[in-house]
Amino acid sequence: MSKTIPVVEKILSANDELSEVNRSRFDAARVFAMNFMASPGAGKTSVIEQTLKRLGDDLRLGVIEGDIATTIDAERVQEAGAMAVQINTGGNCHLEAYMIRDALSQLSLDELDMLVVENVGNLVCPANFKLGTHKNVLIASVPEGDDKPYKYPGMYRGVDVLILNKTDLLPYIKFNMDYFREGVEILNPGLTTFPVSCHTGEGFDAWIAWLREQAEAMRSQS
Amino acid sequence: MSKTIPVVEKILSANDELSEVNRSRFDAARVFAMNFMASPGAGKTSVIEQTLKRLGDDLRLGVIEGDIATTIDAERVQEAGAMAVQINTGGNCHLEAYMIRDALSQLSLDELDMLVVENVGNLVCPANFKLGTHKNVLIASVPEGDDKPYKYPGMYRGVDVLILNKTDLLPYIKFNMDYFREGVEILNPGLTTFPVSCHTGEGFDAWIAWLREQAEAMRSQS
Repeated sequence: MSKTIPVVEKILSANDELSEVNRSRFDAARVFAMNFMASPGAGKTSVIEQTLKRLGDDLRLGVIEGDIATTIDAERVQEAGAMAVQINTGGNCHLEAYMIRDALSQLSLDELDMLVVENVGNLVCPANFKLGTHKNVLIASVPEGDDKPYKYPGMYRGVDVLILNKTDLLPYIKFNMDYFREGVEILNPGLTTFPVSCHTGEGFDAWIAWLREQAEAMRSQS
Repeated sequence: MSKTIPVVEKILSANDELSEVNRSRFDAARVFAMNFMASPGAGKTSVIEQTLKRLGDDLRLGVIEGDIATTIDAERVQEAGAMAVQINTGGNCHLEAYMIRDALSQLSLDELDMLVVENVGNLVCPANFKLGTHKNVLIASVPEGDDKPYKYPGMYRGVDVLILNKTDLLPYIKFNMDYFREGVEILNPGLTTFPVSCHTGEGFDAWIAWLREQAEAMRSQS
C-alpha cells in the first residue's frame, strides 16, 4: 500500500513569513506602510522631515528608524512631529522583518495613518529582505551620479516608487537625466518617480498628493 | 598517561588566510596596494581618474574594479590610462580576498607600482573583509552629510586614510566640518585626511605627495 507523502506547497523563509505577519498588522490597522531605502546620505531622513511639514493633522505619520548606531535620525523626525522608534542593528547592514515586528510593540498603529520604515543606508542588502510594508521606496540623489541604476540593478528593479532627491544641486554636478531615466526604465518600466529637493521644496506637492491617495485608498478599504 | 592535545594557536578565517596570500604577492612585487571603500556615488572612480592624471609615467597604477554589475568603472579608468580588471560580484555587496586573488591572474603586478582595489559602493559590509591591501582608504563626500562617522562607525574605525571628496559643493550644502571631524576623531584619532574636489582639483597635491611617499617606501624596502 502506497503512502501519500505530504508536499508543502509554499515554503516561506522565516523572514518572508514574519513580513506577512507585519503586513497583516498594517492592514488591520489600515496603516499605509513604506520601506525607505537609499545610499547613506541620499536624504531619507530629510525627505521624511519635509513630508511631515507638509502633511496636515489629518494624516498621522509614524517612523521606524533603522541605523547601525545612534538615535540621530529618530530624534530628527521626532522633532519634526512624528511618533518615532529607533532600531539599532549593531552592525547589521539591513533591516529584517523581525526587527520591524519588535519595533511595532513600541508604536500604537491605531494612532497612525501612515508608517515609514527608514532602512539602513545601503543600496545592496536591504533589497533582499521584505519587511511587510506596502511599498518599497528608493530615494536616489543627484550627487550619487546618473549611473547608479546600471550599477545597483537589484535595488532599482525591486522598488515601487523612486524619489530623486537633491535636484537643487543639478546646476553644480554633471548628471545626465536622460541616461539616468533610461537606466531606470530598463529595470523598472514606468516606475512612479518624484524628483524633489528638500532644500527648495521643489517637487513635494506631487509626492504629498500621491501619499494622500495611498492613505485614502487604505482607509476606504472595506 | 595523559595525551597532549594539540592546540592551534592562530586560526584565520578562509578570507583572512587568502588576504595574507594576496599581501605576500603585493610585497614580493613591491606594489603598494589600497582598498578604496565608500558609499555609492562618493566618487571612488573619479578620485582614481584624477589621481591617474596627476601621476607621472614613473608611477604605474593598476585598478581592480568591484561592482555588482557592468564594466562602467573599468572602462573609465582604462580610458584614464590605467591597467584595469573588472570584478562583477553578481549581487554580492562587498569584495572578498578570493576575488582579488582571481583578479590578480589578469594583472601583471611586475608592471605596476601601485594598485587600487575599488570595492562595491557600501559603507557597511566591505569593512569586514580584509583583501590583503596595505591601506584601507575611505572616500567620504560632502553631500552624504556630516553625520556619517556617527552612523557608520565600523567603517570609519577601520580605515587608514580618509579622503573627503566634493569639497566644491560645500557652499551649497549644510555640512558642519567641525562636527564631521569630531566624529572621525572619536573613532579614529589622528586619521590622515585629504579634503579634495575632483571638480576643481583642490587638495590633490597633498594626496599625490602622500601616494608618492608610500610607493617610494615600498620600492626601497630591502
